Amino acid sequence: MAQLTGYTNFKYFSVTSASPAVAHVEINRPSKLNAFLEAMWLEMGQIFGKLSIDPEVRAVVLSGAGDRAFTAGLDVQSASQDSPLAPGRKDGPTDTARKATLLRRHIAEFQECISAIEKCEKPVIVVTHGISIGLAVDIACCADIRICAADTKWSVKEVDIGMAADIGTLSRLPKIVGSASWVKDVCLSARYFDAAEALAVGFVSQVHESKAAALAAAFKTAALIASKSPVAVQGTKEILNHARDHTVEDSLRYTGIWNSASLQSNDFTTALLSGIQKKKPVFEKL
Amino acid sequence: MAQLTGYTNFKYFSVTSASPAVAHVEINRPSKLNAFLEAMWLEMGQIFGKLSIDPEVRAVVLSGAGDRAFTAGLDVQSASQDSPLAPGRKDGPTDTARKATLLRRHIAEFQECISAIEKCEKPVIVVTHGISIGLAVDIACCADIRICAADTKWSVKEVDIGMAADIGTLSRLPKIVGSASWVKDVCLSARYFDAAEALAVGFVSQVHESKAAALAAAFKTAALIASKSPVAVQGTKEILNHARDHTVEDSLRYTGIWNSASLQSNDFTTALLSGIQKKKPVFEKL
Amino acid sequence: MAQLTGYTNFKYFSVTSASPAVAHVEINRPSKLNAFLEAMWLEMGQIFGKLSIDPEVRAVVLSGAGDRAFTAGLDVQSASQDSPLAPGRKDGPTDTARKATLLRRHIAEFQECISAIEKCEKPVIVVTHGISIGLAVDIACCADIRICAADTKWSVKEVDIGMAADIGTLSRLPKIVGSASWVKDVCLSARYFDAAEALAVGFVSQVHESKAAALAAAFKTAALIASKSPVAVQGTKEILNHARDHTVEDSLRYTGIWNSASLQSNDFTTALLSGIQKKKPVFEKL
Amino acid sequence: MAQLTGYTNFKYFSVTSASPAVAHVEINRPSKLNAFLEAMWLEMGQIFGKLSIDPEVRAVVLSGAGDRAFTAGLDVQSASQDSPLAPGRKDGPTDTARKATLLRRHIAEFQECISAIEKCEKPVIVVTHGISIGLAVDIACCADIRICAADTKWSVKEVDIGMAADIGTLSRLPKIVGSASWVKDVCLSARYFDAAEALAVGFVSQVHESKAAALAAAFKTAALIASKSPVAVQGTKEILNHARDHTVEDSLRYTGIWNSASLQSNDFTTALLSGIQKKKPVFEKL
Amino acid sequence: MAQLTGYTNFKYFSVTSASPAVAHVEINRPSKLNAFLEAMWLEMGQIFGKLSIDPEVRAVVLSGAGDRAFTAGLDVQSASQDSPLAPGRKDGPTDTARKATLLRRHIAEFQECISAIEKCEKPVIVVTHGISIGLAVDIACCADIRICAADTKWSVKEVDIGMAADIGTLSRLPKIVGSASWVKDVCLSARYFDAAEALAVGFVSQVHESKAAALAAAFKTAALIASKSPVAVQGTKEILNHARDHTVEDSLRYTGIWNSASLQSNDFTTALLSGIQKKKPVFEKL
Amino acid sequence: MAQLTGYTNFKYFSVTSASPAVAHVEINRPSKLNAFLEAMWLEMGQIFGKLSIDPEVRAVVLSGAGDRAFTAGLDVQSASQDSPLAPGRKDGPTDTARKATLLRRHIAEFQECISAIEKCEKPVIVVTHGISIGLAVDIACCADIRICAADTKWSVKEVDIGMAADIGTLSRLPKIVGSASWVKDVCLSARYFDAAEALAVGFVSQVHESKAAALAAAFKTAALIASKSPVAVQGTKEILNHARDHTVEDSLRYTGIWNSASLQSNDFTTALLSGIQKKKPVFEKL
Repeated sequence: MAQLTGYTNFKYFSVTSASPAVAHVEINRPSKLNAFLEAMWLEMGQIFGKLSIDPEVRAVVLSGAGDRAFTAGLDVQSASQDSPLAPGRKDGPTDTARKATLLRRHIAEFQECISAIEKCEKPVIVVTHGISIGLAVDIACCADIRICAADTKWSVKEVDIGMAADIGTLSRLPKIVGSASWVKDVCLSARYFDAAEALAVGFVSQVHESKAAALAAAFKTAALIASKSPVAVQGTKEILNHARDHTVEDSLRYTGIWNSASLQSNDFTTALLSGIQKKKPVFEKL
Repeated sequence: MAQLTGYTNFKYFSVTSASPAVAHVEINRPSKLNAFLEAMWLEMGQIFGKLSIDPEVRAVVLSGAGDRAFTAGLDVQSASQDSPLAPGRKDGPTDTARKATLLRRHIAEFQECISAIEKCEKPVIVVTHGISIGLAVDIACCADIRICAADTKWSVKEVDIGMAADIGTLSRLPKIVGSASWVKDVCLSARYFDAAEALAVGFVSQVHESKAAALAAAFKTAALIASKSPVAVQGTKEILNHARDHTVEDSLRYTGIWNSASLQSNDFTTALLSGIQKKKPVFEKL
Repeated sequence: MAQLTGYTNFKYFSVTSASPAVAHVEINRPSKLNAFLEAMWLEMGQIFGKLSIDPEVRAVVLSGAGDRAFTAGLDVQSASQDSPLAPGRKDGPTDTARKATLLRRHIAEFQECISAIEKCEKPVIVVTHGISIGLAVDIACCADIRICAADTKWSVKEVDIGMAADIGTLSRLPKIVGSASWVKDVCLSARYFDAAEALAVGFVSQVHESKAAALAAAFKTAALIASKSPVAVQGTKEILNHARDHTVEDSLRYTGIWNSASLQSNDFTTALLSGIQKKKPVFEKL
Repeated sequence: MAQLTGYTNFKYFSVTSASPAVAHVEINRPSKLNAFLEAMWLEMGQIFGKLSIDPEVRAVVLSGAGDRAFTAGLDVQSASQDSPLAPGRKDGPTDTARKATLLRRHIAEFQECISAIEKCEKPVIVVTHGISIGLAVDIACCADIRICAADTKWSVKEVDIGMAADIGTLSRLPKIVGSASWVKDVCLSARYFDAAEALAVGFVSQVHESKAAALAAAFKTAALIASKSPVAVQGTKEILNHARDHTVEDSLRYTGIWNSASLQSNDFTTALLSGIQKKKPVFEKL
Repeated sequence: MAQLTGYTNFKYFSVTSASPAVAHVEINRPSKLNAFLEAMWLEMGQIFGKLSIDPEVRAVVLSGAGDRAFTAGLDVQSASQDSPLAPGRKDGPTDTARKATLLRRHIAEFQECISAIEKCEKPVIVVTHGISIGLAVDIACCADIRICAADTKWSVKEVDIGMAADIGTLSRLPKIVGSASWVKDVCLSARYFDAAEALAVGFVSQVHESKAAALAAAFKTAALIASKSPVAVQGTKEILNHARDHTVEDSLRYTGIWNSASLQSNDFTTALLSGIQKKKPVFEKL
Repeated sequence: MAQLTGYTNFKYFSVTSASPAVAHVEINRPSKLNAFLEAMWLEMGQIFGKLSIDPEVRAVVLSGAGDRAFTAGLDVQSASQDSPLAPGRKDGPTDTARKATLLRRHIAEFQECISAIEKCEKPVIVVTHGISIGLAVDIACCADIRICAADTKWSVKEVDIGMAADIGTLSRLPKIVGSASWVKDVCLSARYFDAAEALAVGFVSQVHESKAAALAAAFKTAALIASKSPVAVQGTKEILNHARDHTVEDSLRYTGIWNSASLQSNDFTTALLSGIQKKKPVFEKL
């Protein structure tokens, strides 16, 4: 697949064009199981920030390079040396409150980079395979559609490194699956769960036999979405995200206001008439 | 089934008595796959407003007439001519903000008519079959219990007519099923899904082999609910709806205040003693 | 199992030590199907208040004594004589508003006793078997992880005694399972549902063939959780509970602030290094 | 002043045209101190519903006919005979829960009629004089701008008739003035307060020496507002009302979406250029 | 004034009867400027918990004994030795996260004791004089009505002891006065402000020349409130407190449900008829 | 005053050191009445982002250069040529929905730059003088403390350019002053108001006779704040901002968690002992 214009200067990610208007973002550090260094999440935040407003892109697929892992999460080896709280680190403050301030800022910046996936105005489909632990779950929770290969080994791994997950899993997982009992089970025990279990609780909506098959399915769904009115698609993502955190009353009002501009789009007329005339509609970029 | 007194002057709906205290509302435009004209949603709002406070009614079943469709949603042919934004319409304002105002009011009124099902103080069981797309999903989301025939063909169809669904699907669907990934999948792609899939994600809670069987099951559940204390049943609906949009803390307080009046009802004593004495209780109308 | 120190003066509950740092709370009125008297919920509130801050305890299993029932819920016979609204009660106020005040206070106190399970800082795993109706569901909804024996007979029974459930089921059930249609179905009809149905909708996350097997599974999970950093585990419970009732934005911020203190714990270093060094970590009490 | 077209069939209100695009609504039962019968609040709800979407109207002034009272509130004499809970009333239900249901519906409908002032898309300026008690405060709280004559005698009178005010005063007053201590003082004691006190706490923003002067000031402000872009004015009212009940974050987002349609209005260009060219702009109806 | 029955076993507070149904709670450690020890806030929590449900009490006045101070706030001397974080304390945990847990629990318990004033179902009028700093403001913020003597010297003093105020001032002050700029000014600078300034921003609603005069005014208002229907008064307090933290929409609904029981009270009939018949009503205890 | 290190590369702002740890940010385009170009709000966002985490800074004063204006708001001349909706602009999209998307993004970015003042972790005192209209109010609303010169001429000017203010005034003003009637009055009419009126409604907390005197007062307050524990001061700002948008219950919990780290600071011990020992405390940077 061709590199996507404007996304070539990233060290840890490859961004290619999967099909017209479909971008493919690949975490690209397979030698280390795609484990994340700080530079990587900063890059990821930038990439999704750009995709969000890139008129050439209408849908995004996110996956990990290599056979073994979507991502093994935080690169613990590196974090144990470089993070604000690395055990051997000597240069930071010693005062508890001042350390807390650094930590708050560090966590907030990290969260923001990952949340960029959720805030991306274009739909994002994540495809996981192999090892998918810790940060892998935080990332997957931000995507719109979760598809996984049958060999995916999931774990909300954070309690095993002595911490409550703080990059989004605990904030989002309870709202995107259908069993609070299961959420507590996997988050409190850090136990592994597989693709079948992820499907049963609704965490993913498709499981495919291999990474290749999962990717193919994701590209197909992405292409389908990219063929629709981008005004309709992007509005749908925005309103669904808004709905999660607001009352039905608030959501209905917000939707009405959103559509008071969107329904004046040519896309509405184009699609409406195409439907009646059984023609394939063409939509302007957005 | 007999017409229900007071509901005979509706053109597009038949309202009958399915069993004591159980009303059956049928969308009645089968020649057009029960597709909705503006006059129809206005009627539907009125009907559920009346049922809400009708002391003769304790449970409602909603279904669509004919073999082919619960409803094909908005009558697009008609909407493309008559709606505030119909392509060929010449008489409205040309200013974008003024069009937006008309659209906001139009959407708000439309939403209110459909929300009347949710706000109806009596439980509503919806039974779907055949084509159930677009507005069909908005309507189903407002019902309390969703039962479907095996042949139901669902689709959140709106992106295919160039718009984000704005009559409630996007506001309610994420809160009534157990997989956000699935919600995004069906809402962004407008793809069809069937009864089995709807059951798997918890959108419906029963699937029956035919429309007749689904209706029979709905009438049975409705009759069961209608045999209970209406104070208990209507309080339960209200508190569950309130809970969806409030914190647990708020919901508990609201429940306590609600029951501070309701527990003084004769129904409580009647039911409590009937249980102890193994007798069938009889409750006053409400 | 040995009595847990400090928990011997409870009449209706036995509190023992299942394994290091795992407490087992048993509802202990099997002759009456573990039905609840007012004294029992008051005791239960006290027990979970103590466990919450007991440094010897890192996980709790809650179950019911005897073969027949987790609990048959409220002891209706007793409630019909002693409660503020008992049919034959003569000593209370006659004024509706004054009765309402007594009821509000009574319900609030009752709710608080049951909510003590949810507020307990240590994870709580509930194991149900046999009859598990009315208050049984309110209690189960407060636990973090729900495991049940195959013979569990559940019912949200309250409408059958003429009231809307007011001790938490209606406030929590819609937020912990994945089908609003199912929630309305069981809450409005008071019908029984079994372990398989509870699993299918995500109400429980494990079903075992017998009470003994379910208990064994609960003890195993509890022991696993108790082996982890208590800072990480208790933070995870708190953040998940907070997430349920707040927006993702709010939850992320709260998490960052929580972890600004927690990540300064020795547990983080200990666990991080243990992981790298493949050693079993040991954590201080909390 | 001339009757406003389309508002002549109201028995208890006169609706006239104060100046171009300014409607004057007058409570017109001076012989009874403008005390409210049920028919009156129903009429008031209808009037403000009509004004809300009447393109001829851009601002509304609300006042009371006669010298003595803006309104003495609920017509207690009438309420004590006709209301759902009138002491002598024999035809209603006797069951407490069923009475409660009737009361909830009655209060909700009453609230909705008064809230129509707040929901009116056009700004409403209320002018009070003389006796302004009970319902007078509920009504004033719904208006956008409160102006009073120096002789206004205010009282949140409801505790004196044995009830907590339930038509909006307790919900709105704490949010529209700057002293919670004062709010509690006047609401708990039912004591009278005068125009000067109302001004000091920010309840009203102007006091004038007489009803005539207060009305003149209101008409002047209304005319000023009516000379502005109705897109800008109505958007401002909506966003301010929304802001009251939402976080700043939510409000900013809502505002951005609102303006994404409104800024495309010709009004923006017209006003911008008029400002630069120092000309008086003319705006289309809305 | 006579001791109030049931309130004699408090060491640091005197609780007397100011007039029929009016309790007077006095902070009683004048030798130490009424500075608070931990035992004192625990006692205060208990006292207001009792008053809340004491049928003999309909209004409460809270003040400080002695001439010099309402209260000088936390007894810093004592806190620097006994609190969980006392500089010289050796027995607690050394781990940051474990210290944080103790602090969270300590703060939560302290907050709850002070919040008992706000949660007290009966209205509370606070009267301040002289030194009123730190905790004095937290306490005053919880009262319903704030009256002060002209010599009151206020300060949100906490930043001067190196901490953000955490017992309620920062949570409540922004919601009970009318100038966010003033709130930030006094909270960030810890500067003193006097009675006149407190009145100007709406923090207090009355200033009197002396402590005696302020107390007299408070007793008069309390007696007036105590003469009203307790159903109406207590409902008014509850609904106003609820309104502060909810949308107007939510508050209106809550109010309607509250009144669906309260309006069935005899107090409503009694008060209504007394008003018509110009007689002084008598109300049952609550 | 000396330039502040690291802030020299801004074209439209001068950033100097007013006194130890006090930064002075000056809008510096006096020849155009400090009217804002897009480049200016982008710069302002960057400056406050830097100040927020600059350990050399503990308090910030913001004012406008020159004698005539704090700022005349948006540079309308420039906006009418360069903005996404400039009347003569030809290069943008013509589709309404696509224009709306550009506008949403544009407004969101603009809002974010101004909100940087509110989000700045250090307290910000704004000093206004002369013309202070439109954007001036949006900016002032974000500051913590508002001080103005007697000659300040305020106006919420946006309706005069045909739009509802969308950079924050409508979202924040209702929450920071004590009269909703006044807020609606000035926002709907765009009329001017002076310093005295701003003080009376609590919009500003100090008025001084001249710009010089106002600045001097601001520097004095800033220096006072900068002399306090930065842990205490910054925690106070954060908690007050959080409180505005959350319930008291939520705010109390958030405060407890915040302080569970902050109270472990040396600042607490330092300040506590300094107070007891009557010494001037010295605090580490933050």
